[in-house]
Amino acid sequence: MGRWEPNAYGRLQLAALELFDERGFERTTVEDIATRAGLTKRTFFRHFSDKREVLFGTGDEFKAVFVDSLTAVPPGVAPIDAVAVSLEAAGAMLQERRPFARRRQQVIAANAELQERELIKLASIATALTETLRERGVEEPAASLTAEAGIAVFRIAFERWVAAPDDEQRELPEFIREALQALRVVTA
Amino acid sequence: MGRWEPNAYGRLQLAALELFDERGFERTTVEDIATRAGLTKRTFFRHFSDKREVLFGTGDEFKAVFVDSLTAVPPGVAPIDAVAVSLEAAGAMLQERRPFARRRQQVIAANAELQERELIKLASIATALTETLRERGVEEPAASLTAEAGIAVFRIAFERWVAAPDDEQRELPEFIREALQALRVVTA
Repeated sequence: MGRWEPNAYGRLQLAALELFDERGFERTTVEDIATRAGLTKRTFFRHFSDKREVLFGTGDEFKAVFVDSLTAVPPGVAPIDAVAVSLEAAGAMLQERRPFARRRQQVIAANAELQERELIKLASIATALTETLRERGVEEPAASLTAEAGIAVFRIAFERWVAAPDDEQRELPEFIREALQALRVVTA
Repeated sequence: MGRWEPNAYGRLQLAALELFDERGFERTTVEDIATRAGLTKRTFFRHFSDKREVLFGTGDEFKAVFVDSLTAVPPGVAPIDAVAVSLEAAGAMLQERRPFARRRQQVIAANAELQERELIKLASIATALTETLRERGVEEPAASLTAEAGIAVFRIAFERWVAAPDDEQRELPEFIREALQALRVVTA
């Protein structure tokens, strides 16, 4: 057992983002990350199974925020409004991590393989939302369309939020509401 | 130069789909495909650079159908209606190749890596449609939302079309119109 390191998780995450940014994702090793954080590889592997996990998380916690918040919406709420609640809940979670989310996005934008991983992750969230809508009694193709349109709204709102200037006052849930409203306008 | 083989492209494509279906994409080699088609590896490589190309095509012809048909829509048509024209044009092209499209879909559905490749290809089409809409003067986030929603409509319509029974009378463009109408209803 290694000794306890204060905030090892956060230090490793920050060190990884710095290095991915400086020399690229491919050319950064786990050893580099641990060294930059002043920690050992062993400590790294207590927190992450590989360097990609620093960016994409360990499991499906992010997906769970979407699904759990959709499940919690009272029955009878229109599907698109129920999905909006779910998107805003996930958005509120990311809002609290804005500096991390922005740096992470810069790393992903610079690497095609990571962009594909992000795309696949979002597709998997859309599938989970589709299933949850079906369980709420929404029929096809409405369930798939609502979930897929919702994830498109989320992704576009997210991109606009991370690209906004540092003094941006609007929070991610507001960007999500705006994008959903814009979707309503373009499809009207 | 090898001798000319009648319909080598189609024979190789059919042989590949049969083998992918029988033994899986991973366990099928280019040699297997050529042998099944009664052709040589050399002939295979005159038509495809690798076995994945049998499923995903050589270049961006499919994307070009979307982009060119969107570009050809007269200015002044609402963005979502212009995108609908583009989706239906791509749908009409696939309709002519329904037996191939259905078998191809079965192979892709059985392989996570191929599903990811398909997802990435569709995302790239959405990006191209977004750029084309911007060139038509559509502002953000409307351009992105229209393109992304359009591709969601296309994908969901496509899935329903390939899953339809053999005696299905409706053609893919009709599934696309239905899905777009369903999107309008869910976002209304």
